[in-house]
Parts: sequence; C-alpha cells; structure tokens
Amino acid sequence: MVPNRIKQIWSKGGQAINGWLSIACPFTAEIMAEQGYDAITIDMQHGLVGYEVGTTMLQAMRASGVTPMVRVPWLDPGAVMKALDAGAYGIVCPMINNAEEAARLVSYVRYPPTGNRSFGPTRVNFAAGADYGQHADDEILCFAMIETAEAVENIDEILATPGLDGVYIGPADLTLGLTGRKYRTGFDREEPEMIEAIKHILQCTHKAGLRACLHNGSAEYAARALEWGFDLVTVSNDVRLLAGAAKASVDKVREL
Amino acid sequence: MVPNRIKQIWSKGGQAINGWLSIACPFTAEIMAEQGYDAITIDMQHGLVGYEVGTTMLQAMRASGVTPMVRVPWLDPGAVMKALDAGAYGIVCPMINNAEEAARLVSYVRYPPTGNRSFGPTRVNFAAGADYGQHADDEILCFAMIETAEAVENIDEILATPGLDGVYIGPADLTLGLTGRKYRTGFDREEPEMIEAIKHILQCTHKAGLRACLHNGSAEYAARALEWGFDLVTVSNDVRLLAGAAKASVDKVREL
Amino acid sequence: MVPNRIKQIWSKGGQAINGWLSIACPFTAEIMAEQGYDAITIDMQHGLVGYEVGTTMLQAMRASGVTPMVRVPWLDPGAVMKALDAGAYGIVCPMINNAEEAARLVSYVRYPPTGNRSFGPTRVNFAAGADYGQHADDEILCFAMIETAEAVENIDEILATPGLDGVYIGPADLTLGLTGRKYRTGFDREEPEMIEAIKHILQCTHKAGLRACLHNGSAEYAARALEWGFDLVTVSNDVRLLAGAAKASVDKVREL
Amino acid sequence: MVPNRIKQIWSKGGQAINGWLSIACPFTAEIMAEQGYDAITIDMQHGLVGYEVGTTMLQAMRASGVTPMVRVPWLDPGAVMKALDAGAYGIVCPMINNAEEAARLVSYVRYPPTGNRSFGPTRVNFAAGADYGQHADDEILCFAMIETAEAVENIDEILATPGLDGVYIGPADLTLGLTGRKYRTGFDREEPEMIEAIKHILQCTHKAGLRACLHNGSAEYAARALEWGFDLVTVSNDVRLLAGAAKASVDKVREL
Amino acid sequence: MVPNRIKQIWSKGGQAINGWLSIACPFTAEIMAEQGYDAITIDMQHGLVGYEVGTTMLQAMRASGVTPMVRVPWLDPGAVMKALDAGAYGIVCPMINNAEEAARLVSYVRYPPTGNRSFGPTRVNFAAGADYGQHADDEILCFAMIETAEAVENIDEILATPGLDGVYIGPADLTLGLTGRKYRTGFDREEPEMIEAIKHILQCTHKAGLRACLHNGSAEYAARALEWGFDLVTVSNDVRLLAGAAKASVDKVREL
Amino acid sequence: MVPNRIKQIWSKGGQAINGWLSIACPFTAEIMAEQGYDAITIDMQHGLVGYEVGTTMLQAMRASGVTPMVRVPWLDPGAVMKALDAGAYGIVCPMINNAEEAARLVSYVRYPPTGNRSFGPTRVNFAAGADYGQHADDEILCFAMIETAEAVENIDEILATPGLDGVYIGPADLTLGLTGRKYRTGFDREEPEMIEAIKHILQCTHKAGLRACLHNGSAEYAARALEWGFDLVTVSNDVRLLAGAAKASVDKVREL
Ligand SMILES: [Mg+2]
Ligand SMILES: [Mg+2]
Ligand SMILES: [Mg+2]
Ligand SMILES: [Mg+2]
Ligand SMILES: [Mg+2]
Ligand SMILES: [Mg+2]
Repeated sequence: MVPNRIKQIWSKGGQAINGWLSIACPFTAEIMAEQGYDAITIDMQHGLVGYEVGTTMLQAMRASGVTPMVRVPWLDPGAVMKALDAGAYGIVCPMINNAEEAARLVSYVRYPPTGNRSFGPTRVNFAAGADYGQHADDEILCFAMIETAEAVENIDEILATPGLDGVYIGPADLTLGLTGRKYRTGFDREEPEMIEAIKHILQCTHKAGLRACLHNGSAEYAARALEWGFDLVTVSNDVRLLAGAAKASVDKVREL
Repeated sequence: MVPNRIKQIWSKGGQAINGWLSIACPFTAEIMAEQGYDAITIDMQHGLVGYEVGTTMLQAMRASGVTPMVRVPWLDPGAVMKALDAGAYGIVCPMINNAEEAARLVSYVRYPPTGNRSFGPTRVNFAAGADYGQHADDEILCFAMIETAEAVENIDEILATPGLDGVYIGPADLTLGLTGRKYRTGFDREEPEMIEAIKHILQCTHKAGLRACLHNGSAEYAARALEWGFDLVTVSNDVRLLAGAAKASVDKVREL
Repeated sequence: MVPNRIKQIWSKGGQAINGWLSIACPFTAEIMAEQGYDAITIDMQHGLVGYEVGTTMLQAMRASGVTPMVRVPWLDPGAVMKALDAGAYGIVCPMINNAEEAARLVSYVRYPPTGNRSFGPTRVNFAAGADYGQHADDEILCFAMIETAEAVENIDEILATPGLDGVYIGPADLTLGLTGRKYRTGFDREEPEMIEAIKHILQCTHKAGLRACLHNGSAEYAARALEWGFDLVTVSNDVRLLAGAAKASVDKVREL
Repeated sequence: MVPNRIKQIWSKGGQAINGWLSIACPFTAEIMAEQGYDAITIDMQHGLVGYEVGTTMLQAMRASGVTPMVRVPWLDPGAVMKALDAGAYGIVCPMINNAEEAARLVSYVRYPPTGNRSFGPTRVNFAAGADYGQHADDEILCFAMIETAEAVENIDEILATPGLDGVYIGPADLTLGLTGRKYRTGFDREEPEMIEAIKHILQCTHKAGLRACLHNGSAEYAARALEWGFDLVTVSNDVRLLAGAAKASVDKVREL
Repeated sequence: MVPNRIKQIWSKGGQAINGWLSIACPFTAEIMAEQGYDAITIDMQHGLVGYEVGTTMLQAMRASGVTPMVRVPWLDPGAVMKALDAGAYGIVCPMINNAEEAARLVSYVRYPPTGNRSFGPTRVNFAAGADYGQHADDEILCFAMIETAEAVENIDEILATPGLDGVYIGPADLTLGLTGRKYRTGFDREEPEMIEAIKHILQCTHKAGLRACLHNGSAEYAARALEWGFDLVTVSNDVRLLAGAAKASVDKVREL
Repeated sequence: MVPNRIKQIWSKGGQAINGWLSIACPFTAEIMAEQGYDAITIDMQHGLVGYEVGTTMLQAMRASGVTPMVRVPWLDPGAVMKALDAGAYGIVCPMINNAEEAARLVSYVRYPPTGNRSFGPTRVNFAAGADYGQHADDEILCFAMIETAEAVENIDEILATPGLDGVYIGPADLTLGLTGRKYRTGFDREEPEMIEAIKHILQCTHKAGLRACLHNGSAEYAARALEWGFDLVTVSNDVRLLAGAAKASVDKVREL
C-alpha cells in the first residue's frame, strides 16, 4: 500500500504542511498538488466540492505523491466511507463534541473489528495498491474537529477514543463556539483567550499521545503554530490564494 | 443590451485590464470576476476549457459586470459562433496570418450583411438582453492574434479588414514565430528585437485606427505595456496566480 | 450583503411569488430567473438536482436578482449547510413533524449563538458580499415543511421554535399524511377537508407571527392562496411548465 | 436496426413533427421525448449543447422511440461523425451554400463507397442494433440547411447531390441572408417575399424528389407549413416553451 | 407502470440475475444493460457513483428493459428517496442490523400509510409511467443487507418487517462481521462456517416467505447460489469485468 | 520531461502494447492504466470522449506511468493542439490521405520552426515537467492513419513527411476504403488481399525508417501483428472488453 506521507513525516519527528481545496475542480487540485505541500485536504464541508468532482480531484492528485485527505460535510457514515473508498488517506470530521461522536467517527473509518467500515475499496484499491484492505487501518488518519465549547469541555474523553489519530482545530468555529459574536469571524486568532484555548487543546492532545492540527489563514500564523508544536498545519486555501493573488495583481497594474 | 465595458472605457480614453481563465471551472471564474478586472477572457485554446464548462463560466461571471471574452481554439466558425451565442462579448482568435484569415474571422463574428454569423443568440439573449440581435455587431469585439512572422509581414492588410476591432499579441508564439528557438519561451519579452516587434505592431494598429492588446505574465510588464499605449493588457492567468501564490505560501512556512 | 427580496416584499406588506426548479441544469435556472418570479427554489429533494449542479444553478441565477432558495433532501446538517454556503438565501426542509425537528433545522441554519451552523461561507461570500457573516442570520429564511398528520398536530410547538421564519405546505404529502390514499395525489386540493387543513395551518402560522407558504400546481390555485393570505406561493415548476407547453404545442399542430 | 420513424411516416405519405432541444440537459431531453413528437433534434449549433452532454441526451431519449437528430455546429467532419456514432439518426447541417458543400456534407454522413464516413459506431451499435453498419446509410437522414442568398441561387445543384435526403429551412438566417436587416429577426415570417422564398425552396425540393423541412416558432405556423406541403416541421424549442410557459404563469398569478 | 422484471420472474418461479455498476458513467451502464442481465444495480455505496451521474445511468439503461436498482450509501432517507424518484425499482440498503433499522428502511421506501416516503416522482413518472404513484409500492423492491453478526442474530425480527421484500447478503462484510480478520476479504466464500452462515440466512428468509439475494464475484459461485435456492444472484461487477478482461488480454499478447 | 515509454521501448528494440479507451470516464481510464499496457490511447474520434472528460482521463492515468495518446476526431488544429496541451504524448490522426494532409498534421503537432503548434502547455507543463517546451518535439509521437485507397496509393509521399513518426492502420476503414462493402466490417482481417495491404503498408513504413502500428480486436491478432513486425499493436478496447466479459459472465451463469 502506498504509505501515508504524514505518518512518515511524523515517524521521523517532523511536522506536516497541508494544503486545502475548496474549489471543485480536478485541475486546481493537480496544480496545488505540485506546489510542495505534504498533504492536501479536499473540503467537502465548506468547499464547493461534492462527491463526483471530489473523486476526480483525488485522481488528479494521485501522481503527485501528496497525501490526500477529505474533510467530510458532517459526521455521516455514507460520506466518510465514500471518501475513503474513493482514495482519501485521512478524514477530517467537523463538529465532534463528545466521546460518543468521536467513537462513531472512528467506527466509520476503521474496518471491523475496530470499527464498522463496510468493505469495498473500489477505487482506492487501484490508487493505494491491492493490499489496501490489509493496511488501511494503519495508514488512514482519523481526525476529530474541535470547534465548540462542548468539544473543549469534553476534550479528554474525545482524545481517549481508541482509533482516533488526533484533533483538528477549526479556529473560526471555535471562536464562535467559545465567544459567540464577540470577535470577528475567521482564522489566525490573536485574542489571548483564543490563543489560550488553542494551546490548551494542543497540550491535552499531546498529553494523550495524539496529534494536533491547526487550520491557518496565512503562512505566518502557520509558522507560529509549528513553533507551538502542532503536528500538521494547514496554510490558506485555493480560493484565498487565487483571489488574493488576482486582486494584488490587478491592484498593482492600476497603481503602476 | 448590456454594454461592453471595454468599449465604454475606450470611449472615455481609458485602457482596459483583462483577466485570463485557463482553469475549467465556474467557481474560479466567479472568484476572478470579483477581483477588479474590466474584462476577463476564457481561454478555450490553451486553457483546459471546453464548450460545456466554458458556458457555465460565462454564467458564473454574469453578475459581476465584468465583460467576458473567449479565446477560441482556432479560426473555426463553429467555435466562434458557439462562444458568441453562449455570451462572449469578444472573440480573440489565434494565429491570424493574413487578410483572408482576418476576413474569415470577421465573417464569423458579424451578422449579415457585414459577415456570415448565423442567427440564434440562445443564451446571450437572456444575459445581454432581448435587443441583443440589434446591437451585437456594435458591442462585440473581434481581435486577431498576431503571433507569427507571416502575420507581422501582413500586419497592414490584416488591420485593413472591415469589422475587425484590433489585434491581440501573443508574445510567446510571436517570439517562436519570429526567432525560432533562439530565446526562452514565454511572455514578458525583454529582448530588444521582440520589444521592437511588439511596439511595431502597436504602432501599425494605432495608425490604422484600431485597438492593440498585449498578453502579459506580470503586473509590472502589463504596466509597461499601458505606458507604451496598449489599449488592453492581460495580466497573468488563474493557473499562474494560483500556483504562484500556493508555492510562495508553502515556501514561506518552510522558511519561517 | 445583497438583501433578501422576499423579506423586502414582506416588509412592505406584499406577498412573494416563487418559482421551482426540478431540472438539474444551470441554463434552465437562468431562463427561469428571467421570467418575473420574486424568488426561485431549487428542489434538491424531489428534483433531479444534486449538490454539484445545484451550485452552478445558484451561479446562473445570481445576475437576475431573484432570491434563491433550496429545498434540501431531508433534515440533514451537511445538506443544509452546504446549500447555504453555496448561496441559498432560504432553506425549505421537508417533513418537519415536531418541535425537536424544527429546533434542529434552525440550529443548522443559524450561526452561534442562535444555532450551530458551521462558519465557512465559501461561495456566498462572493455572491452575497463580504459582510455575509454579519448579516446572514437576518437575511436567510428558514421554513419547516408541514406535510404529515404529526406535523399538523404539533403545529403550535413547531411554530414556537425561535429562529424559524415560517412554514411551507406540501399539499401532496399533506394529503397522503392526513388522508392516506383516499384522494388522488398531487397539489391544488379541492377536497373541503384538505382546504380546511391548509387554512388551519395558515391561521396558526399567522397567529404565531410567522410566514406561511404554499406549493401550487397552477397559477389559478396560487392566486387563491394569495387571497387566503399566504405570504409566499410557489407556482408550478420547470418540469410541468416545459412538459405542458410542449405537449400543448404538439397537440395543437396535430389538431390544426 | 431500429427504424427511422421519420422515414416510416414518409413512406406512408405522412408528415413528421419535430421537437428541438437547445438546453444541454438529459432530463429536459427525456421530458420532451415523451410529449408526442415524431423526432427531436438536438441543436449543437445555436443550442447550449456540446458533445458530452449531447450524448447523454441521446441516451435519455432512447427509450421513448422518438427519432433523434442532431444539428451540428458547422460543416465539420469530426462533428458530423461524432454525432452519428453517438446515435443521431439524422444530421441537419447549417449554411450549405452550394453543391460542393452539399457533397462534403453527404460524404461525412455516408459510409464508403457513397461517402467517406469513418467506421466506428461505438454507441449507436448498442442503441440502434448490431446490424447498424449494414443499414445506416438507408436509415440516416441528411439535411442541408438553406439559409443564404447563395444557397437559394444554388438550390437546384444542392438538391442534385446524391445521398442528400432533403433541405431544412432556417427562416431567421434566410431572412437575414436574403434581405439583410430589412425585417425583424426570427421565425414565422409573414413578409410576402419571405413566404415566396420559402415556398420556392419547397417546390424546388419536391421537384427534385427530396424532402423539405421548416423551422417554426409556433404551432400555428407549423400547421401552415404542413398545409404548404412540408415533410417535416419543427415546432418551437425547449427554451421558448419553458420561458413562455413560466412567464405566462407568473403573469397570470400577478393578474388574478 | 412499467413492471418490475424481477417480480415477473419470481412470479413464474424463476430466479433473477443481477449486474452491478461501480463505475460512474452512463455509457458503461448502457453497455451493461445490453448483456443479458435481468436487473442491474447501481452501487452508490462502494461504487464511484454519486447522485448526479447515477441519474444519467438510470436514463441510459431505461431503453434496455433491464430493471434498475440502487444500492444506497447508507440508511439515509434523502438518499433512498432521491434514488426512487430518479427511477430505481429496488433499493438495496447496507448494514441493516435489527428490526428498528429495517422498519426505518421500509418507511423510506413505501408511501403512506405503509411508510413515510415523500411524494414527488419527478423523473420516474416519465420513465415508469404516469400511474407510478398508484403502483409503486407494489413494484418497488426493498432489500435489507445482512452483513454483520448483529444482523445475523436479529435475522428473524428483520425478516418480520412488514413491507420488506427480502435480504441481500454482502459476503465480504459478513465475513468481516462474523469472523473479523480471520479470512481473506472478498466474495465467494469457501470457508464452511461462512457457507453455513449464508445458507442459514437463506433458509430463515425463505421460511419467512421473503426473497434472498447473494452478491457473487464469479459466474461459478453465482451458479452455486442459484442451486442453493437464492432468488437473485449478482454476478461480478463492471470494474472487475473490465479490469479482468483487460489484464487477460494484455497478458495473452505478451505470452503469444 | 517525463519520457515517452513507447520511444524507450523502441529504442531498446522492443514492441509496444497499446490499450484503447472509447468510454468517456476517468475511472475506466484509471482502471485500464493499471492492467499492463505500455501506452493507452483515448479515442476522441469514434469513442464517446469529448475534450472535457478526455482531460480528466489524462489526469486519471498520470500516476500509472502509462504513456497517454489521443486519437483526434479529425485533422483539425484546435483538436490536435488541445489534446497535446492537456497531456497527450502522441497523436493518432484519422484519414490522412496524402502528403499535404500529413504535412498539416505534423505542423499541428510540432512547435516552430518544425511546425506551427501554438505555445501554451497549460496542463502538460505540470504533468510532464516544467521543461516540456524544450523536449516536447522529441517526445511527442505523431501518427498518420492509413485507411483509404488514396492513402495507400500515396503511402510513400506520406511517409516522406518530415516530423512524422509513423503510421497507424485502421483495418475497418481500410477494408471499406479498399474493397467497399465486399467484406464484413471490423478489425482482424483474414482476407488475403487485406493482409497483403496491411503488410505492404508495414513494409513501406519500415523502408522509410518510420514506425508502424496496427489496431486489433483480439490478443491473437495483435500477437500475429507483432510477429509481422509491427512496432505498436492496440489490443481491443474498453467497450468490447467490458461487453464481452459481461456477456460471457451472464451466459455462464445461465448455462451452469
Ligand atoms: Mg469549522
Ligand atoms: Mg499564442
Ligand atoms: Mg413533500
Ligand atoms: Mg440558421
Ligand atoms: Mg457490504
Ligand atoms: Mg478509422
């Protein structure tokens, strides 16, 4: 089975850099996969990606060697298992708030006897190798998103879920969840209470022996997150990168 | 009929800034259309765009008010007319090398008696307005690409073609066409002989009372082209903007 | 943020006319959006529309100014939130039968602290404006479909759900739900017991200070519904309009 | 081989009624195919249909028994042959202006030794039957569109082309071609000179022993065309039928 | 209403042969539908098929007369009802483990008063006939997949569910569920304990007066299953058939 | 630049085995690419593949290392160049009948000064490497199909075309072209006159120092062609492999 590059990096003590795809297009996926990321996540929650185009994006990234993951729309067995059968090497699941939800998530990602994933690796058998069924549970990563007050309260029981690899922090939702409309929405929080919350989750996760991931809007914040010890950092996404670069380019012509 | 923003800008003595879409995706088109370009061209020649996705891109840009154009794959009546019926407000046609080809191009873009465009504005009737048939020949722009030695030789006869609005210079092909493999491929030429050739075409065009457009890889070069007097400058494209911004962002995280 | 035309009409004491899209096609959406409806709902329940084409339909309708809504397939957080992030200004949710289901629906539609909608307005940020996050909870409409005996019994508790804007009556299901197979299936009920049921729901809704919407098969019935006081009426759908007009046209040629 | 219903009707002395698809969607094709037309033409010239969706439309109409035809974008061998291999039972080709163009058209539609169609009936072999190769040249219809002054002048030489089944009149283009901008654009001409031109083409065609077809915007005009003796009449199209029915329906609600 | 061929075969004492589609493509569906199967199931669980392409596959198979079924991704009302409205004549639902889940499945498949299926047969009304609503509950087949230890334990209560037509055995998951990782994954079990389990389910099903179906990887095993008395056998799938035939063909050339 | 595996095989004195894709689907392409072929050709002439799906097929095959080629619909510069920019490493062009057509074909495939290919390797730059522009003319294969009497007559002048790599024989068309309807249509000719014609083309090609390719329906015939000395043999295609395997499998169950 083609190995999971994130796990390889971690096994050598490294930290992984993750790209993020919100545009539903195999070519943008192929372009992004050549830019130096270790892993790339297709966002089927807030991204414009549905299952059918998402599958072509997994195909388009296969040659690059980048490890593909999928953020599923919700804690839904059909969505999780279809993403895995299509080739995802990791699942990022939004809004996991307690141990019961974390256990359900793991049960969708792992084959029996660990979980209840149904067997039928239709495409991934070709993309990952014919021995996929034997190794999938060792290679596939399973991340619970921590992004509500309830999740923060239950962080230790969530982290105690067997089969879970770690947590993924969504700072925009976490800020809404912990502080309501007190602050602006978005990533790259600078409020001390939010930084504290983020570091608290990181510490609990490491104490539990699991991996912590942070979603970031900028390279600068991602670099800080790496310094804090995050195991994987996501840096921006295709929509922001494209819009930002295009706007900067038009503005520059108008200024010059 | 919704007016052509490029023609409005020109009528006030202005110069237009054009974006470029090589990714086949309505969402990238919608994103790009919000970044401040005056016009945006869908590249159906070298871009990955075919007719069916190209049409959804025209739909996705409609609300923005940006004037949409299409670069067709080749001097082909079916391709030109389908692009127009789908909503293109301008046609950029590659590799126009002489007066006969320029005349054929115009004949595909203009309705009788000027040309031979077939009548059936199926989608553009909704997007541009029910009076499209009456005003199309006044609003639609028709550009011949000048990108071979033959075209440069025949530049004056090409510019004399009734119904042609102007020329569009493709510097990568023009360099190949004029100098073979002497220089690197690509845009933003710095070789004196290429700058001279580009300025020569610009001058001939203005002398003929037509409009000159230049394809550019960077905002800096586009700004120079505006100084030289180009009427429309294209600045980079979606592929380069996305790839460049993503690579810069990953590199930055790794460096920090 | 681009305002919700339905709310504008209501704030002036008016009633809204809604179109209905069951065909999965951006061009039919664009055509329908130019015919004079105030709002148009994409039917992702019984319509042939899935998420990916549904998104292109939202793009194709954007320029028209018609307010787009989505009927989701079921009370599913992933489906509701993806529709909103893609640009829906209203959610119509089938088969809401009690207060608990209505509360879940609202929680999917509203951001914290009102609900639990996850933050990530990927496309709607472009289509509605960059201030979408601040105003979405005020502009987005949330409708519970009342179409079972259980729902009618629980109508008052459903209507008491904070954050709910109103109810949407599906007469075909309501008739099945209240009377089994006693009557023909379909809209535009003429049975006194069904008219009574419909008017009862309308009155309860208005008593609760909320808005009532009715699905209609014909302009005539929609006009009656407006007289009864419905706040929004849906008139036919694209499938019936196309099939009906085509059949009438063929029949006429054969008769003439 | 599944027989061509148009030829069956003609062999019994009947006249055929043809529907017209300008919307790129298999479901609209399937709906239209159930409304009573004898044949339905997918418009790949002015319609929004490209090759890939066009093929799904042919699939969606197969069960109905309606004879499918394709109007190709232009006199292009690739486009003609791909349409046939995908299942078209008739080709309508725009802008055939002289005998040479008519001969090229026939050569693309007929297998050797009559023409030069390349052999590879990939899909049509399943849809029409395994004996397609033997009978195709007898069942496939080949129509030249007559829609310019040049074509009218050359009508007799066009009609003398071996392998051509008949002509198809496009009244919008024919009016532009014969009279320039003298009259409004569109179908259903009432100007005596246009009616005369149309009848002239009809008579020449019948004199040559071939079939004449007319494009019509309304059932009324199609009925007149049948009285004049046209062998096939097209009645409106999906775009007009949908837009017209929707507008009428909204207007009615507002009036009532 | 177009009758269900499986039910017709069963009513005459026959056994049905089912094909299986895991490739998301209307043309592979059309090809498969011409190869002699009685029924064909589109696999939306482990297959690469999503809703939008799945619908075009149903359209492409309509002309063949093969009875189309859908395996849904999971026990989800939206997925079940959308498959039925799109034209499925049978639902195969994975991982039904107890009576409560079986009852929910039936409630999604049957109209009131038997179940809670929402009324809106948008496409199937065209494909099956305008009387679909009256006969659907008699023609549509509803199968619960038995593939876990829990399901085997609860087999009798599952079989007692009113409205259920039978069970469908997934041998790969059943083996994982009953024996963990003791044996290789896959179909066509030869282990005595698995054969016993399969026959046990078959006997319970027939005792309950319902129908039993088995998924098979090879024609040989399917033939054995028919001898055992299975009412419907699935034979391989499109992916395996294509991959196997291609590999055999390449290997043969290399050997010869 | 990723090297062309066919050229590597030839440079070592080997013969290449080519697969053939007529189904428009990235997953069938990905499956086929794992079955042991050296090269795989996407058939955009008789296959159901258009440009947009064709591009996703190229993406889906990239990881396999199989060399992708495209058979274009016709000798059309737009089609040839779009296929190359999308990633094709070889062009197979139908119906090349004389030196002039062969020269036009080469001019579309090669960059100046050899030909007139326009520069813009939008996707292939990612798939083949950033040095694509420098090496493309050395790696890309250009094949003229020989399939008419005229082509056979002109074989030597065709083979004398600078920049042409070889010829590709289409036996179905060649048989029609040389013998009309005398024999059955299809591949794997057994008639002495056809075998002689095929061997004649092979010998002329080798005498000219170019490469000869043959399209075959079966592994047996492909093996014979290798013995005759063909440099590349195509073995069957996805449609026949799938249909054949499915039919054999159903028939076997019915027989057993
Ligand atoms: Mg979140
Ligand atoms: Mg160029
Ligand atoms: Mg309902
Ligand atoms: Mg015309
Ligand atoms: Mg299973
Ligand atoms: Mg051929």
